[in-house]
Amino acid sequence: MTSPKLDIVAIGDAIVDVIATCDDEFIAGRGLQKGSMRLLDPDEAEELYEAMGPAREIGGGSAANSMAGVAALGLGAGFIGQVADDQLGAIFAHDMRSLGVRFDTPPLPRGDGSGPPTGRCLILVTPDAQRTMNTCPGASHELSPQAIDEELVRSAAVTFLEGYLWGPERPRSAMLRAAEIAHQAGRTVAFTLSESLCIPGRREGVQAIIDAGAIDLLFANEEEVRHLTGSGDLERAIGELSAKVTTLVVTRGAAGSMALEDGQRAEIPAAPVDQVVDTTGAGDLFAAGFLAARCRGHALQRCLESGALAAAEVISHFGARPEADLKTLVRL
Amino acid sequence: MTSPKLDIVAIGDAIVDVIATCDDEFIAGRGLQKGSMRLLDPDEAEELYEAMGPAREIGGGSAANSMAGVAALGLGAGFIGQVADDQLGAIFAHDMRSLGVRFDTPPLPRGDGSGPPTGRCLILVTPDAQRTMNTCPGASHELSPQAIDEELVRSAAVTFLEGYLWGPERPRSAMLRAAEIAHQAGRTVAFTLSESLCIPGRREGVQAIIDAGAIDLLFANEEEVRHLTGSGDLERAIGELSAKVTTLVVTRGAAGSMALEDGQRAEIPAAPVDQVVDTTGAGDLFAAGFLAARCRGHALQRCLESGALAAAEVISHFGARPEADLKTLVRL
Repeated sequence: MTSPKLDIVAIGDAIVDVIATCDDEFIAGRGLQKGSMRLLDPDEAEELYEAMGPAREIGGGSAANSMAGVAALGLGAGFIGQVADDQLGAIFAHDMRSLGVRFDTPPLPRGDGSGPPTGRCLILVTPDAQRTMNTCPGASHELSPQAIDEELVRSAAVTFLEGYLWGPERPRSAMLRAAEIAHQAGRTVAFTLSESLCIPGRREGVQAIIDAGAIDLLFANEEEVRHLTGSGDLERAIGELSAKVTTLVVTRGAAGSMALEDGQRAEIPAAPVDQVVDTTGAGDLFAAGFLAARCRGHALQRCLESGALAAAEVISHFGARPEADLKTLVRL
Repeated sequence: MTSPKLDIVAIGDAIVDVIATCDDEFIAGRGLQKGSMRLLDPDEAEELYEAMGPAREIGGGSAANSMAGVAALGLGAGFIGQVADDQLGAIFAHDMRSLGVRFDTPPLPRGDGSGPPTGRCLILVTPDAQRTMNTCPGASHELSPQAIDEELVRSAAVTFLEGYLWGPERPRSAMLRAAEIAHQAGRTVAFTLSESLCIPGRREGVQAIIDAGAIDLLFANEEEVRHLTGSGDLERAIGELSAKVTTLVVTRGAAGSMALEDGQRAEIPAAPVDQVVDTTGAGDLFAAGFLAARCRGHALQRCLESGALAAAEVISHFGARPEADLKTLVRL
């Protein structure tokens, strides 16, 4: 086991966020569920895009946002994800690399234009700062095991896997392959459920890898903990789940967060925010702050605090990537 | 002369803004002139894009931003400009149409990918809120006289031409054709110099159309007035220029603005702003506010005030398109 060169490498959706504001009537009128994430086929995405307001495009993707945060915190970050050889793919790659995140996954050729384009997520932000996400994954779901840079995975202390990408078979195989390589190299494998359990058929597969011991560190919110264990009682569900992973981190929105590890338990309130503008990326940046503090050797409590501070920054403005100087805000 | 269906139709660059923050050292280190606009060839643009920070993409273009403002103020706006058949072109078109701006110029096919892509403007915003613009016009400069929708031009009370697009021969012919159609239909032709005079060789062509009486309403800043007339004395330069156009509007940044028409003169201070974040679009939105008030029949003073309020909104946030409810802010 050699000493890691990178702190964290993430595998996740490589997509561009398309962010627009809208009112509650727009959400209700289209039968969307506020605060949720759903997958769209290209025709649905086209139709929704036409109906929504003027937008700003920013590199996105849950685990990619986390790596943006990790790099902003001054740690070494890498990302593996599939874009297409098009303008949105170039935007995604630029936004990653310009943050100092290593990103080398070759873009998928679009051929005669019939191949899947770079994925996008149409994000509708309502006046209450909630975001409703409509993802058209495109090339992102074509990530294959061959695209996994084994050397990169071996070189990172933590391999961080995104639940959203867990569904389709090809990227799931790619992530399983990465987890295997990471464990062989004596590294830590982290997994974020990222609301992916709302996708039908996702629960059993996630349970299976947790039961198989493939996950060392799990990020979940309260609802996901309940849903995954099938237990209505939160404390009982947490106890059950924490027995299966080395470290369990549970986020509770405005109620704060907690972590359990080796019988230890830490709990903190959410960091204060002057004005919540857009909650997109809150969970992604929480994971970034937690993982960065963990890589720097901090105790559970400090890791939670770091996560809460990073999350507080990202919800104070539009977009899921940090804009303020995270290093100064969090001080690891 | 039939009654106009649209209030204003603009002809200008159809480009996507790529906005990133940077420090003064970045600007100085690359030999850029802060606050300026320059044209880049595709290789230079690629190189600068790689060097700059993570960005947000928003539909841009000077006159297009003005039409976004005019539509936000509740007036009927249209836009004519050339995008390519690519993802950035789709973003530009979406951002226009979703604001209610009529935009029907067919995209230029990219063929085997060798055709010019949709134009983009790499905008670097320094901590003092100044923007340094680096434009790669791409398809935007391919606008041809055939792309002018004559019926659309005839249907608008005002045809608004953007100085940036005045340089290359093809779009210049297109704009001259539009001005001719507008005048034949008894409409008003407005022109904004939009700092275009900083482009070598631009001055004489602009002087020529002003001298030819092709422009009824001219927007200029102090420096442009001096540069265009070749007179160091501002008052004298203004007097000289105002004799050649029906209406002359001069913006003076933080010092406010003034307008001259038929011997009348109005002058106002700039509208107060809590915090100036990004001055991109200040001139574009000033023109929007002025033109919208004018179309609603207001007097010079009220037109200047309307322009100042619209400009104040757009400099209070990143990006050159209004985000707040302009209609409520300006109340025409």
